[in-house]
Amino acid sequence: MQERGFGSDNNSGIHPAVLEAIIKADCGHTPAYGDDPYTESVWRKFKDNFGLTAETFFVTTGTAANVLALSACTQSWNSIICARTSHLHVDECGAPSKFTGCTMIQIDGENGKLTVPLIEPHVCGFGDKHHPQPKVISVAQPTEFETVYTRKELCALADFAHKHKMLFHIDGARFANAVVSLNEKLSLARDSGVDVLSFGGTKNGAMLAESVIFFEHELAEKFKYIQKQGMQTVSKTRFIAAQFDALLSNELWRKNALHANEMAALLARTLREETGYVPEYPVEANSVFVRFGEYKLRALHGKWFFYDWDSKGLCRFMASFDTTEDDVTALIEDIKKY
Amino acid sequence: MQERGFGSDNNSGIHPAVLEAIIKADCGHTPAYGDDPYTESVWRKFKDNFGLTAETFFVTTGTAANVLALSACTQSWNSIICARTSHLHVDECGAPSKFTGCTMIQIDGENGKLTVPLIEPHVCGFGDKHHPQPKVISVAQPTEFETVYTRKELCALADFAHKHKMLFHIDGARFANAVVSLNEKLSLARDSGVDVLSFGGTKNGAMLAESVIFFEHELAEKFKYIQKQGMQTVSKTRFIAAQFDALLSNELWRKNALHANEMAALLARTLREETGYVPEYPVEANSVFVRFGEYKLRALHGKWFFYDWDSKGLCRFMASFDTTEDDVTALIEDIKKY
Amino acid sequence: MQERGFGSDNNSGIHPAVLEAIIKADCGHTPAYGDDPYTESVWRKFKDNFGLTAETFFVTTGTAANVLALSACTQSWNSIICARTSHLHVDECGAPSKFTGCTMIQIDGENGKLTVPLIEPHVCGFGDKHHPQPKVISVAQPTEFETVYTRKELCALADFAHKHKMLFHIDGARFANAVVSLNEKLSLARDSGVDVLSFGGTKNGAMLAESVIFFEHELAEKFKYIQKQGMQTVSKTRFIAAQFDALLSNELWRKNALHANEMAALLARTLREETGYVPEYPVEANSVFVRFGEYKLRALHGKWFFYDWDSKGLCRFMASFDTTEDDVTALIEDIKKY
Amino acid sequence: MQERGFGSDNNSGIHPAVLEAIIKADCGHTPAYGDDPYTESVWRKFKDNFGLTAETFFVTTGTAANVLALSACTQSWNSIICARTSHLHVDECGAPSKFTGCTMIQIDGENGKLTVPLIEPHVCGFGDKHHPQPKVISVAQPTEFETVYTRKELCALADFAHKHKMLFHIDGARFANAVVSLNEKLSLARDSGVDVLSFGGTKNGAMLAESVIFFEHELAEKFKYIQKQGMQTVSKTRFIAAQFDALLSNELWRKNALHANEMAALLARTLREETGYVPEYPVEANSVFVRFGEYKLRALHGKWFFYDWDSKGLCRFMASFDTTEDDVTALIEDIKKY
Repeated sequence: MQERGFGSDNNSGIHPAVLEAIIKADCGHTPAYGDDPYTESVWRKFKDNFGLTAETFFVTTGTAANVLALSACTQSWNSIICARTSHLHVDECGAPSKFTGCTMIQIDGENGKLTVPLIEPHVCGFGDKHHPQPKVISVAQPTEFETVYTRKELCALADFAHKHKMLFHIDGARFANAVVSLNEKLSLARDSGVDVLSFGGTKNGAMLAESVIFFEHELAEKFKYIQKQGMQTVSKTRFIAAQFDALLSNELWRKNALHANEMAALLARTLREETGYVPEYPVEANSVFVRFGEYKLRALHGKWFFYDWDSKGLCRFMASFDTTEDDVTALIEDIKKY
Repeated sequence: MQERGFGSDNNSGIHPAVLEAIIKADCGHTPAYGDDPYTESVWRKFKDNFGLTAETFFVTTGTAANVLALSACTQSWNSIICARTSHLHVDECGAPSKFTGCTMIQIDGENGKLTVPLIEPHVCGFGDKHHPQPKVISVAQPTEFETVYTRKELCALADFAHKHKMLFHIDGARFANAVVSLNEKLSLARDSGVDVLSFGGTKNGAMLAESVIFFEHELAEKFKYIQKQGMQTVSKTRFIAAQFDALLSNELWRKNALHANEMAALLARTLREETGYVPEYPVEANSVFVRFGEYKLRALHGKWFFYDWDSKGLCRFMASFDTTEDDVTALIEDIKKY
Repeated sequence: MQERGFGSDNNSGIHPAVLEAIIKADCGHTPAYGDDPYTESVWRKFKDNFGLTAETFFVTTGTAANVLALSACTQSWNSIICARTSHLHVDECGAPSKFTGCTMIQIDGENGKLTVPLIEPHVCGFGDKHHPQPKVISVAQPTEFETVYTRKELCALADFAHKHKMLFHIDGARFANAVVSLNEKLSLARDSGVDVLSFGGTKNGAMLAESVIFFEHELAEKFKYIQKQGMQTVSKTRFIAAQFDALLSNELWRKNALHANEMAALLARTLREETGYVPEYPVEANSVFVRFGEYKLRALHGKWFFYDWDSKGLCRFMASFDTTEDDVTALIEDIKKY
Repeated sequence: MQERGFGSDNNSGIHPAVLEAIIKADCGHTPAYGDDPYTESVWRKFKDNFGLTAETFFVTTGTAANVLALSACTQSWNSIICARTSHLHVDECGAPSKFTGCTMIQIDGENGKLTVPLIEPHVCGFGDKHHPQPKVISVAQPTEFETVYTRKELCALADFAHKHKMLFHIDGARFANAVVSLNEKLSLARDSGVDVLSFGGTKNGAMLAESVIFFEHELAEKFKYIQKQGMQTVSKTRFIAAQFDALLSNELWRKNALHANEMAALLARTLREETGYVPEYPVEANSVFVRFGEYKLRALHGKWFFYDWDSKGLCRFMASFDTTEDDVTALIEDIKKY
C-alpha cells in the first residue's frame, strides 16, 4: 500500500463512492459521445446545483476545460486577462494561445488575486483595429496560492466585465474547495455573475472528470463543435458522467472539499503552534504555503513528495479528500525533527 | 440491466479485467501527470509488445491520438494524405486542420483503402514554396469500412512514404482487431515501417484509454509539450496506464479483439446463410456492412441501435468484446422477422 | 530593356496610368492605415462598380485576399469546398488551413470548374458534432485553366450555397478577364449571388493591389480585426487605393483585361491555323494551354519563360495587358521553327 | 497640395529616389515571386550592409515582418518575451499569438526598454512540460517611446538569450533611426548578436517595403514556406526590391533617418527653449513625447494631426524624412499661440 502525501490533491486516488458509480454505470451498451441516459441524468443534477440555465459539457483535463471554455467566448483577435501567477499562464504550456489564438494579458496581482483597479488599465482600445479587443477576464477560484475570492470580489469583477461587454470566466479546478471555504453553494458561480465556469471533479475525488458550465445558452450553442474539434468528445462519456453523479449526490463534493480544507487548516494551525512556522499566504482552501531553510527543505524532500514554489524555500503542502489527521501529525513530526 | 447492441464497440462498457486494474491502481498517492510507477511499468509492456524503440504517450480520445501524433510529424506548411472516407477527414470536426494547420489531402480509395498509385499523383511540389509540402501518409487500420491492410500493403505505403522522406501514420483506434484479423503481433506496426501509431484501448474493452506510439525517438522528443499544449496531459494518468496494463497482460487485447471479430464473422455468415443478405464489404474485422430496404431498416431501428452509413439503406453492425452469440441470434431473428 | 514573355500576367510591370496615379498620390502627409482621402474616394468607385452594398478592403497578395475573405466567413469547425485544381488548394502553401483552421474539401472538377452535382455529396452532416460543418463554396473565376463560369453557372452555385445557409466566395485574381470574357459588368459578382469576392488588381496592370469585397455588411463588420491580425493592414494604404483608382477610372480594368484576352485569342487562333496545335482547354480568358512534344518544349524553354502544367508536355502561355501582336507573332515563329 | 504634419513617419509619402527606383524597375517582364534580377541584386546590397550571412526576405507590413520572423524562431509551445508597451503586444491585434500560437510574455520596462534583470524571472521552466518554453526575446529598436538601446544593452540581451539557448529578435520598423542615433552602421544588428531583424523601409521613405533579415542560415532555411503560408509572398516582388535598392544606395537610409532625427531634436530643443515644455522621454530618434494641458491639446488637434499617448495629455510628435524646419517652426508657433 502506497502512502499518502501532501504533493497535490491530484496525487490522490478515487473516492469510493465515485468508483462505485463507475462500476454501476458499467452495464450493457449505451450510445456513445454523451447521448446516454447517465449523461442526461447528470445534466439535471448540474442544473439543480448550478441553476436552471447551466449547460454542462464533460472534458478530461483542467487545461481542456479552461481552453475550450475560453475558445467559446472569443475570436482570435480578442484578448483574455489573467493573473501572471495563474495556471492558465504558467502551467498549460501555452494551450490557451495555441487554441484560441488570443492575446493573453498577464497582470501582476496580490496573493494571486486580480482586482478591478489592477485590470482597468488593460481594458482599452475598443474599436481600434490595431489593438486586441478585450473580451474575457479569467480568474482561478481558489487562486494558485489558494486564496479565495469573496462573493463581493467576484461580483465586482463580473460587473466590471459586463460593463465593458466582456465575459467572466472562472478556472474552478478546485471550485468546490473555494465554495466550502466561503460557506456558499455551487450556485455562487451563477449568482456572482460568472458566464462560464471550468468545474473540476478530479481533485475533488474523481478519477478523471472535468466540466465546462455555461450560464447562458448563447455561449453553449456551438460548443459541441469546439469540444469535438478540441479533441475532447469522449466516446464512453457515461463514465465521466457517473463520476460527477457521485460527486453531486448527497453533496459529496462538499464533504470532500470540506475535509481537505480542514486538514489544511489543521496543518497550518499545528505548524504555527508547534513549529513556529507561519504560512506565507492566508490558508483559505486546502493548501499551506510555507518557507523553510535549505537544510530542512532537503531533508523533508527526502521523505515527502511536495512542490517547491520558488528557489528560496517556499513550498506547498496540499491536503486531499483522503488526507488523515495522522498524515498531518506525521508531517509535523518530520518538520520538527529535521 | 441495459441490453447490448450492435451500434459500436464504444457503446460497450469496461472489460472486467480492466475495471479490476483501475481498482487495483486506486491505492495511496502517486505523482501526477505520468510520473507514477504504474505508467512506468506499462511503458515497459508497450516496449515488449511494440518493440524496444516504442515510446508511448497516453491520451483520452482517438481524435487526440491522431491529431497530436500528426502534429509531432509536421509543420503547418506540410500536407497530410488520407482517405476521403477516413475518420480523420469525416469524423473529427476538422481537428487535424485546426491543430496542425496542415493541408489535409483527401483521396478517393477503394473499400476505404489507399494504395501507392492512388497517392502518387498527390505527392509532388517538393521544394516549391507555393505548394504545401507532403509529409505524412495516414491510413486507418482497419479502415472505416473495416477492411484490413495486409502486411505487404502496409510495407508498400511505408516504403513509398520513406522514399519521399515522408512519414507513415496509422489510425489504430481498432488496431487490435486488424492485428488479430491478420493473425499478427502488435509489432506488425513497427515491422511494416509505421513511424507513429495511434493505438486505441477504449474500443478494445477499456473505459477511456488511447495512446500514441512513436517508433523513432526523434519524433517523440518534444511530444510532451505537444501533448500538454494539446490539453491531453491527464493528472491521474495512472488510471489510464492501468487500463492498458490490463489489456497488454496475458494478451487480453487479442482475446477481446478476436472475440469481436468472431462475432462479426458469425453475424456475416448467419446473415448470408439465413437471410440471403450479403455484406457490402469484406468482413475482415469486427463489423458488418449490409444494405437493407427502407421498411426493414426502419423496423430494425425501432428495436436496435445502429448507424446508417448512407441514405440508401447501407448500415453497419459492429460487434464488441462483450457481444454474445445470443445477441447475434437475436439480431438475425429480427432481420428475418421484419 | 527587358523583353516581354508569356510566363504570367504578374510578370508584367505597371500600367502607365496606374503608375501615374501612384505619383499623384505621393503628395504631402495623410493619415495611415486607410484613413486617408484617397482610400475613401476609391471606396465610392467600388460601390459604383460593384453595387452600393459593396464594402472593400485592400490587401497586398492574392493569397491574403482569399484567406482573409474565407476567415471572415468561417469558424474553425467549418469546411470550405474548392476544386482540387484550385489555386487555393495547390498554390497557397496551406495558408487557408493554417489561418482559418477549417477543413478544405477538394473536389475533382472538369476543366477546373465545380458544379452543384459535384459538390452535393460533400455538403452533409449539418448539426453532426463529429463532422466539419460545410460553410463556404469557393471557386476561381476564371479557373486555373482559364475557363469561365457563365452567369447561370455562378447563380446555380450561389443558390445551392444559400439553400444550405452556406456562403459563396470567388477567387477573382483575374476577375476582370472573366467579366470581359462574358461581356458583363463588375456587378456580375453581386448580381449572381456572390457573398465575398477576392478582386485582383495586380494581374490587371497594378503594381501590388488586391482587394476583398463583401456584399453584405454583416460579413464585413469585424473584418478590420481579421485584416490587421492577418498582417495585411498597410500603413501607406493610399498607394494601394491609388492603383485601384486608376483601374476603376474610365474602365481601365476592362481595357486591360480585354486586350490580354484578345492577345490570348490571337495566339490560340494563330496556333491552330499556322501550326496545327489545338489548345487543351477552351480559351476563354487570357491564357492558352497547349501540349508540345519533348523536343519542342525544351527548345522553347530555351528562349521563352513559361510554365509547364504537367510532366507530359502541357504548358501555359499567358497574355498580359502589355502583350503585343508582335509578341504573339514572335512566339508563333519560334513554335514553328523548332 | 496636402500639408505635412507630425502624425507619424508613415503618414509621409515616397522619397523621390525610391519612386524613381520603382519607375526604373517598371521595364519589361520578369519572373514573379522574387525570382527576378532586381531582387537578386538587392540581396547582395543587404549582405554588404548587414553582413555576409544575412538572408533577406521582403514582406509588405511591419506586422508581417515581426510575426513571420518570430514564427521562424518558434514552435507553438514556446514563449516570446516582449515589453508590455511594445508594438508587438499593443498594436498588432494579436497577430503574434494567432500565427505563432506562442505565449507572449509581457514585461513592464522603463521608457519602453527591457533589461536582463527585468527578463530573468520569466526565463524559467526549461524542460517542464507544463510550462511554455522560453525561446525568443523581442525588443523594438528604437522602442515605442523612441528610446534607443545602446550597443552594450543589445549585446547584454543577446548574450542572455543565447546563454539560455534562446534567440534575439529586433522589431526594427525604424531601425535606421536608431542606427543613426547611435552613429553606428546597419551591421550593428549582426555585431550585437541579433538573430533576426525586422528591418523597415516604409517609415524611412519607401512606399511599402519591409524585410526580415536572418543572420544564421538555419533559421532562414524554411522561411520561404512560412512567408508564403503567411500570405506575404508578393508576385511583383521586384517593386519592393527596387525600393530597398534605393534606400541602400548611397546610404539614403542614413540621410533620411538622420534628417528625421534632427528635425525631432530641433523640435525638442525649440520646445524647451521657446515654450518651456520638456519632452517626457529622452529624444533619441525621430519623435518627441510631450504633455500638454487639456485646452492646448484640443486647440492643437484642431489644426494638426498627431496621436495622444494616454488620457492625461501625453502626445507624440513624429518627424519624417520630409519634415522641414518650417514645419517645426509652424508647430512651435501654434503651441505658443494656444
